Amino acid sequence: MKSYWIWNYGDYEIYHTNLVNSRRQEYGADYPVFWRMSDIERNIKFYSEIQTETKGHIKLWVKGIGHIVIDGNRYKSDMDIPLEPGNHTMQICVSNLNGLPAAFIESDVCATGDGWYTIDKEENKIKAGYDVFYDNAKKNPEEFPFAYERKKPVSKEKLQKGILFDFGKEMFGYLLITNAKKEEHIHVSYGESREEATDTDESLIFEDVTGEQSYKLRQRAFRYIFISGSESAEAEADYEYLPLEYKGSFRCNNETVNKIWDLCAYTLHLNSREVFLDGIKRDRWLWSGDAYQSYKFSNYLFFDKEIIKRSILGLRGRDPIVEHINTITDYSLYWIISLNEYYMNFKDKEFLDFIYPRAVSLMDFVKGREDENGLVTKKYNDWIFIDWSELDFTGAVCAEQILYIQANKSMANISKIIGKPFKKYEEKADELIRKVNELYWDDEKGAFIDSFESGKRNVTRHANIFAVLYDIATKEQIESIVKNVLFNEKIIKITTPYFEGYELDVMGKLGYLDYIEDMLLSYWKGMLDLGAATIWEEFDPKLKETEHYSMYNNKYGKSLCHAWGSGPIYLLGKYYLGVYPTSAGFETFEISPNLGGLEFIEGTVPINGGEVKVYLSKNRLEVTASRDGGALIFKDNKYTLKPGEKLVIAQ
Amino acid sequence: MKSYWIWNYGDYEIYHTNLVNSRRQEYGADYPVFWRMSDIERNIKFYSEIQTETKGHIKLWVKGIGHIVIDGNRYKSDMDIPLEPGNHTMQICVSNLNGLPAAFIESDVCATGDGWYTIDKEENKIKAGYDVFYDNAKKNPEEFPFAYERKKPVSKEKLQKGILFDFGKEMFGYLLITNAKKEEHIHVSYGESREEATDTDESLIFEDVTGEQSYKLRQRAFRYIFISGSESAEAEADYEYLPLEYKGSFRCNNETVNKIWDLCAYTLHLNSREVFLDGIKRDRWLWSGDAYQSYKFSNYLFFDKEIIKRSILGLRGRDPIVEHINTITDYSLYWIISLNEYYMNFKDKEFLDFIYPRAVSLMDFVKGREDENGLVTKKYNDWIFIDWSELDFTGAVCAEQILYIQANKSMANISKIIGKPFKKYEEKADELIRKVNELYWDDEKGAFIDSFESGKRNVTRHANIFAVLYDIATKEQIESIVKNVLFNEKIIKITTPYFEGYELDVMGKLGYLDYIEDMLLSYWKGMLDLGAATIWEEFDPKLKETEHYSMYNNKYGKSLCHAWGSGPIYLLGKYYLGVYPTSAGFETFEISPNLGGLEFIEGTVPINGGEVKVYLSKNRLEVTASRDGGALIFKDNKYTLKPGEKLVIAQ
Repeated sequence: MKSYWIWNYGDYEIYHTNLVNSRRQEYGADYPVFWRMSDIERNIKFYSEIQTETKGHIKLWVKGIGHIVIDGNRYKSDMDIPLEPGNHTMQICVSNLNGLPAAFIESDVCATGDGWYTIDKEENKIKAGYDVFYDNAKKNPEEFPFAYERKKPVSKEKLQKGILFDFGKEMFGYLLITNAKKEEHIHVSYGESREEATDTDESLIFEDVTGEQSYKLRQRAFRYIFISGSESAEAEADYEYLPLEYKGSFRCNNETVNKIWDLCAYTLHLNSREVFLDGIKRDRWLWSGDAYQSYKFSNYLFFDKEIIKRSILGLRGRDPIVEHINTITDYSLYWIISLNEYYMNFKDKEFLDFIYPRAVSLMDFVKGREDENGLVTKKYNDWIFIDWSELDFTGAVCAEQILYIQANKSMANISKIIGKPFKKYEEKADELIRKVNELYWDDEKGAFIDSFESGKRNVTRHANIFAVLYDIATKEQIESIVKNVLFNEKIIKITTPYFEGYELDVMGKLGYLDYIEDMLLSYWKGMLDLGAATIWEEFDPKLKETEHYSMYNNKYGKSLCHAWGSGPIYLLGKYYLGVYPTSAGFETFEISPNLGGLEFIEGTVPINGGEVKVYLSKNRLEVTASRDGGALIFKDNKYTLKPGEKLVIAQ
Repeated sequence: MKSYWIWNYGDYEIYHTNLVNSRRQEYGADYPVFWRMSDIERNIKFYSEIQTETKGHIKLWVKGIGHIVIDGNRYKSDMDIPLEPGNHTMQICVSNLNGLPAAFIESDVCATGDGWYTIDKEENKIKAGYDVFYDNAKKNPEEFPFAYERKKPVSKEKLQKGILFDFGKEMFGYLLITNAKKEEHIHVSYGESREEATDTDESLIFEDVTGEQSYKLRQRAFRYIFISGSESAEAEADYEYLPLEYKGSFRCNNETVNKIWDLCAYTLHLNSREVFLDGIKRDRWLWSGDAYQSYKFSNYLFFDKEIIKRSILGLRGRDPIVEHINTITDYSLYWIISLNEYYMNFKDKEFLDFIYPRAVSLMDFVKGREDENGLVTKKYNDWIFIDWSELDFTGAVCAEQILYIQANKSMANISKIIGKPFKKYEEKADELIRKVNELYWDDEKGAFIDSFESGKRNVTRHANIFAVLYDIATKEQIESIVKNVLFNEKIIKITTPYFEGYELDVMGKLGYLDYIEDMLLSYWKGMLDLGAATIWEEFDPKLKETEHYSMYNNKYGKSLCHAWGSGPIYLLGKYYLGVYPTSAGFETFEISPNLGGLEFIEGTVPINGGEVKVYLSKNRLEVTASRDGGALIFKDNKYTLKPGEKLVIAQ
């Protein structure tokens, strides 16, 4: 019978996140994450009650050590056990101190997968985790199911000190070196840029090998490979990737915008792996702030809930909580906020049920960071990040309180959904809104200030952007913020594309599509003009040559393939094609397409259980939703869409 | 410089406990513990501030992956790093998903060991763990530092179905089979008894091997090895043991008692390994109740605080607490109680400081199990064990409340010692004492009853023994308990040597040495008479032949080398030689020797920082304490002992 490897629900994701978070290297040194790695359960008991109608056989396989107890009798793994027809109670014990404890039943009459559960400390049954990929005894849930493709370099160039291979665009995978000589001491230098690869003194990622004629080096990101120390070596690579379907698409009259969309899609795809990575070269860590943005982008491209769940589980880990997610206060709050947004897209109550206790304990942890005003503040080693920017970080910071409001709203909402007490979160959100207005809104400046404790009454964009994004600001406040902050040249500009993601989201939300287009055709196009084949972590047109590659005090410290640069997928999908859910799981959804300054746009937006196709030009609109619940909002009219039927509005 | 491998304090012990708890096998099936295995931290940051006076070099070794940051600069492991004279801040990051994260510095100017610390979530510095055994880069803290001795069988016997090897007495180690033929399919059957080894259908532990001429089988316990399937095979063994010093000794005129003491010592030694095991053959798990008794016994033989600390750490694991220690309510309470007793013996405040938060959270967990009366009860899957006996387990059980009183007293005391709030524990103990007297003391029966909820008013020995042992009973109550329970034939007898341990302790405490001698010369001698070379888990003189080996529904389920059988070491040391501490760490201690019904006794009792030698016959007493603080209590007189000076009292 079809059977799947089972594990303690949620541990597979933590296990693979830990592997991800252990793979960073810099200048030859291993560089695991600086935050706590949550571990998995080490010995698991799985239970099931099984009915068989015929005689059969059963064989237990485990990762680790263990046994199966059938109707009270214990049997070892790897042995054939006859099974009589009838009802059977089964219990599998698996222990694994070095890997992921997992079990698999091979049998003609029963299977592992659905129907198996663990029991938590309050005697609740928790469904065992499994993935349909791991469907036979030979497969190993400790190995992530990536796809592979052999890639050859597009060019090979002999330079003075070695051979440079260009793979055409950034990729991630195993480098294969052949045709080397055993006696050669080979230095392999990886580069996202040609300059980085050939700068063997300063390149961030390298490896020295000797003694073999061929090598398969560990998986890393690169576009360029520079091999020195060998005259004859050849390079190929096994591209390793998650085989995600590109469900979303976008085309318009502007080829630059189209190209930006393509590069954003590829950039996001490279960073979509076991979990959402920040960048494919340097950190390759799982960061909550980066992941939170990637969820949004991904929902307009892959609409894959599995990678979001994996990221959410991997970020949160298990109790006890000893520090914020990634040690950052805002990153804990994004995590809470993401749960409600996840539900809005996928209406996955089962996952909410599972994750809920971890959300509650994280909220309790945040609550432990409140000051006497009930505002969230820094305690111990907490990192109040918000952005790399000149915020006034004195005491309780406004932007953080707005995230805390939204986190409480999110908790209230998911509590309601799964039937748990929600009042305390609602009341906390209301109380915080009152306090934020009282303590941070400055009537004179017409904006939220960063901090009230310092007395500086400093205004930056951050809190104001959040206030609009999360619907904290009233209509009047929004009007004031637009004038006094967003379009006020005196307010220091957002300098990181990370926070620019939030600003652009707000610009889209407020209908300032020209602002988005300006950014596409300056910031993003600026990278394209420099030959970027993936979107960078940051771009500053004032920089020259290799200055572009420098960041964090490293000459090549900048990531040239960074997930947060993929925002245009989201912006073009949500604010141009105009598709978004209006109730959980897209049971109802709206399409309000907007050309902005473009001539025509067309594309597909994946939704839960279907997709929406949109074509819009100056005189024609075509919309098709593959499922029901859709409403077109166009020029102040509302049209109900019928599933599968194209609605055409022509002038 | 002398350097040691460092790890996250407490994780080494959990790591090795997990290995121990994973090694049980039965009928060929792996049988890991049924309770949760706590895991260790997977990525650690160690800090130190180091001063060097000369130029030097440093090299980092890690178990896992990691790097060292010296004065802000990151260096990889396994490389030579020059170090200038001066002050340096150092930070080592190590991550290990499959083993124990650990670090070692090899250097001419600095070292790992003292002076290194980790930082907890409240920014307290926690000393890094290390052990002087692991003093060079080649040593591996994932391997426990046992000693080894090659052992040959004392006899070899060809039987019809195979060859039987007798190693003379029970041992633990790696079986070495030589002189086999590759084509032979060899069945190796292990036995604590000859009958078990040769009963290849029913023996609990066996292994089938083929394809080699020689084998080294995994570490197991055995006295007899039966090899079938080979004509020529020879067997030897690598005895694996903890090289503990036998600091305690005991001799008397009765050779049976002497032999019992010797067998008890060997039995305890076999079970003294990474941690205290219950029995060396079957479970080889770490059980809190068994360990608690072993601490007492061990303090009169090895006085080794390291194995006690390892057991305490291994039992407790790390947060979160999802169930009682070993799932048993009483076993959580013994753990708390043991901390104060540990301090009483070793005055190790540093360890208390470290373990204290884990004691607090365990007490909080127990508190979560209180009923509306504030009595500790069963919740969820809690196991109220007390003893394998006919107690009335309805509702809140008296014996459990008395342990809870003692646990609160223990918490109050250790809280005082390390300067933490202690009142709530004192108050809770007082409140519980009042309630226990009110709810469980039966004036008519003159005893504590098991349960008040059932209305049965059943009296067993258990609660009454605890009430005397832990000084809950008043003088009048004790007198009543002695008459109405302890020496009342109508009260069902203790049937397990586990609880008999508590009963004998109470008999010793009350001065009924004749009772102890009767038990030695019936129960313990009974085993000797049947040829026991180690002390069994249980002995019932009514049983015949292989009936003696059966337990837990297995023909050979009984352990024939069980730690809790070693009680006579403690009884003879504490109540005959009469040595015990009267303040923490034996700063003051008393010696009140008692011959009981013996002609003479002599022996050594190890104490903190020294030892006490006692000789007592009917007309002569000699006492020497190697350190100060000792007082001899003899025939209502008190004599102050001078360190190293023998005090002689002759009639």
